[in-house]
Amino acid sequence: MSVDAIRHAADLLRGHRESIDRLDAILVFTLAERFKHTQAVGVLKAQHGLPPSDPARESVQIARLERLAEQADLDPEFARKFLNFIISEVIRHHERHLENGPAVTGGPTQTQGD
Amino acid sequence: MSVDAIRHAADLLRGHRESIDRLDAILVFTLAERFKHTQAVGVLKAQHGLPPSDPARESVQIARLERLAEQADLDPEFARKFLNFIISEVIRHHERHLENGPAVTGGPTQTQGD
Repeated sequence: MSVDAIRHAADLLRGHRESIDRLDAILVFTLAERFKHTQAVGVLKAQHGLPPSDPARESVQIARLERLAEQADLDPEFARKFLNFIISEVIRHHERHLENGPAVTGGPTQTQGD
Repeated sequence: MSVDAIRHAADLLRGHRESIDRLDAILVFTLAERFKHTQAVGVLKAQHGLPPSDPARESVQIARLERLAEQADLDPEFARKFLNFIISEVIRHHERHLENGPAVTGGPTQTQGD
């Protein structure tokens, strides 16, 4: 392979990585914003005695994410796994909140991704 | 608790969930865009005989994500876990690509999040 071809490949690689870095920044800030909302939901539910879990909401969320994933040409199975990953992080946050904050109705295992 | 207070809480809850749904759409489309780039990187590396793994790149990515997470008031540990989650999905994609496509230098375990 010529030096030019290698240089061209390296330039293309750099361009993709710069895009990936920008997209990662979007992901981090979007996730941070999402957690602010789930934290607010957790406080709201605790303050108003609302049930922590809402299975109907969760199944609507999963179906919607799968539909969005299809539109975006993203593996729907990955979208499901991603939601589960986020939900377990929300649960971890709520658990920490329960440890540090006032007692609320229902256990952390009933908490969901909101 | 009065009916009004419950209604107010339900309105707030709905608002947060609508925000969460919009943020989830951003996440899905951003992830889809990110995977397009990592797929292109995988093809590029295979075509040009570039090594699939780049530990220096990965440690820079992790340090950067932790810094971004701090700026965004997101748990840096979560940012790390998130990158690992994404990387394992990229590896799964590359494995599928290796199964279906031509042989490339290095195994899928050497692949990274690009």
